[in-house]
Amino acid sequence: MIAGFGIFYFASMMTIGLDMMGGDFAPLEAIKGVDTYLSAAREDVRLVLIGNEAEMAPLLKANPLPEASYTIIHAPEVIGMHEHPTKALKEKQQSSIAVGFHLLATGKTDAFISAGNTGAMMVGALFSIKAIEGVLRPTIGAYMPREKGTLGLLADVGLNADCKPENLNQFAILATLFAKHVLNIDQPRTGLVNLGEEEGKGNLLAQAAFPLLKANPLLNFIGNIEGRDILLDKADVMICDGFTGNVVLKLAESIYDIVQRRRISDEHFNRFNFETYGGVPVLGVSKPVIIGHGISQRMAFSNMIRTAVRMLETDLIGKMKASFTGS
Amino acid sequence: MIAGFGIFYFASMMTIGLDMMGGDFAPLEAIKGVDTYLSAAREDVRLVLIGNEAEMAPLLKANPLPEASYTIIHAPEVIGMHEHPTKALKEKQQSSIAVGFHLLATGKTDAFISAGNTGAMMVGALFSIKAIEGVLRPTIGAYMPREKGTLGLLADVGLNADCKPENLNQFAILATLFAKHVLNIDQPRTGLVNLGEEEGKGNLLAQAAFPLLKANPLLNFIGNIEGRDILLDKADVMICDGFTGNVVLKLAESIYDIVQRRRISDEHFNRFNFETYGGVPVLGVSKPVIIGHGISQRMAFSNMIRTAVRMLETDLIGKMKASFTGS
Repeated sequence: MIAGFGIFYFASMMTIGLDMMGGDFAPLEAIKGVDTYLSAAREDVRLVLIGNEAEMAPLLKANPLPEASYTIIHAPEVIGMHEHPTKALKEKQQSSIAVGFHLLATGKTDAFISAGNTGAMMVGALFSIKAIEGVLRPTIGAYMPREKGTLGLLADVGLNADCKPENLNQFAILATLFAKHVLNIDQPRTGLVNLGEEEGKGNLLAQAAFPLLKANPLLNFIGNIEGRDILLDKADVMICDGFTGNVVLKLAESIYDIVQRRRISDEHFNRFNFETYGGVPVLGVSKPVIIGHGISQRMAFSNMIRTAVRMLETDLIGKMKASFTGS
Repeated sequence: MIAGFGIFYFASMMTIGLDMMGGDFAPLEAIKGVDTYLSAAREDVRLVLIGNEAEMAPLLKANPLPEASYTIIHAPEVIGMHEHPTKALKEKQQSSIAVGFHLLATGKTDAFISAGNTGAMMVGALFSIKAIEGVLRPTIGAYMPREKGTLGLLADVGLNADCKPENLNQFAILATLFAKHVLNIDQPRTGLVNLGEEEGKGNLLAQAAFPLLKANPLLNFIGNIEGRDILLDKADVMICDGFTGNVVLKLAESIYDIVQRRRISDEHFNRFNFETYGGVPVLGVSKPVIIGHGISQRMAFSNMIRTAVRMLETDLIGKMKASFTGS
């Protein structure tokens, strides 16, 4: 089925696969996001819109996109937000997520983005494409807004509920490269999320990870950071196990909801709208994969495409591979 | 030294030991806190003010307290906020914290409160007085404010960085009794802090703790709660390991700092001023011990005394002992 659609390739082209069926507002907001992205896009980016063609057709007619900039790949099935990831991926091979990973794995696209079932995206990222050689466990990072307007990157935020010390060390390398090349932070400061500042503090995992991070020449390690430092400008890259990181991320997300309900309008707290950032990168896999929030709308989709393009144009994956060569 | 001061006992009296030298604003704010508490106090509460008599004397002259309501116990030494807890407690036996625990352990006081060195308070609580029989590890809870004005209780928030599933089960029993009798919550709902809602989610600890909480007849277990639920009114008692809880607590505390810096005045966010609540109870030890924040001022000290009195008048420790009998 896929081959029949004949995607054209150019040497310098970046081809971004986008799941049009993922998220609460798909496919309309995905189309709008593509529109926003393309309005200021580079000419060497081509989108591959993966989803139900019949559903997309009238929306594309109402919201026309420049024809040369995209291709549609029909995927008749959708994995629901609450389906079991592994089971759904296996049973729904014609779903937009399964097709998206197939295109990515076979080199028909260079990156894949979806705001659909997070678990299915994680499973797909881990099993459809490979981890970078030497990476024990890929990780997912999330942005934390700072008062001065910059972003910090917290990893892991849920892909690895239980971690070994070496996992945290590798998350730090991967997140540092992302912070440097995609967030444009020079010499990103890495902090280990912990329950106290002093060396020697922590649970067994943090105690064992500390010396690994400290001895790692690829990092600008500043030591332990506490919960109170996560929203401050103390570290650019903040490392923890995926259980702690997931609880922190969702707590931080809930602050925005409370601020909204309290009808507080504040420039900084508005930046707690995690939808703004579009999605979180899966780091440590051999191709760029971005997982969007279920509530993603126009701006989120546009930002996710931009992040994927930035990952490609900076050859982030190549830099990650180089960091793990011989490790 | 202590015996010479001759504390008087009455059968119905509740005698609360208060470290006057702990915290950034000691001893003045501790004196003010006692004053505030006594202005609305029950007649059967007596305070034992533990600290440097010479330092306290001029402050007590300037801020006179009703003489019948308190006794002073001189403690010439102070454990600094950054001293090593075990070492300091051992070497400074005339410090206010060491004397405070001695008075508590020997029955000269019924409860002990300090806003001093948190680590020393934890060590003192664990080793000077005993854990309740059957309690594997005592825990420390912290309050989480809700929009409707009530408080949730999160435990553990740092006493136990690494936990076993049975620890979490016991924290839930202890925190539930505190929520019921001190926070006056009928049938407190207990939630397990986790990275997903569904049963089976989580790290190994949460996965193993879930069935224990579910099967526990002493709990009103509502299942897993996520980071986004911690500041909502979903569960009254929220259980996690002390590493996660500590990061969550300090992150929540930092929200108030940000709100202050942004000059946002909002009734709900004002309640994120954790100083308001005075201190956190150590749960599972055989006497009431309350650990205050280093920045504690008048209201915090007053509230800590009130919490200790409430723990005594409801015989919370007796109820905890009964819950662990035969377990």
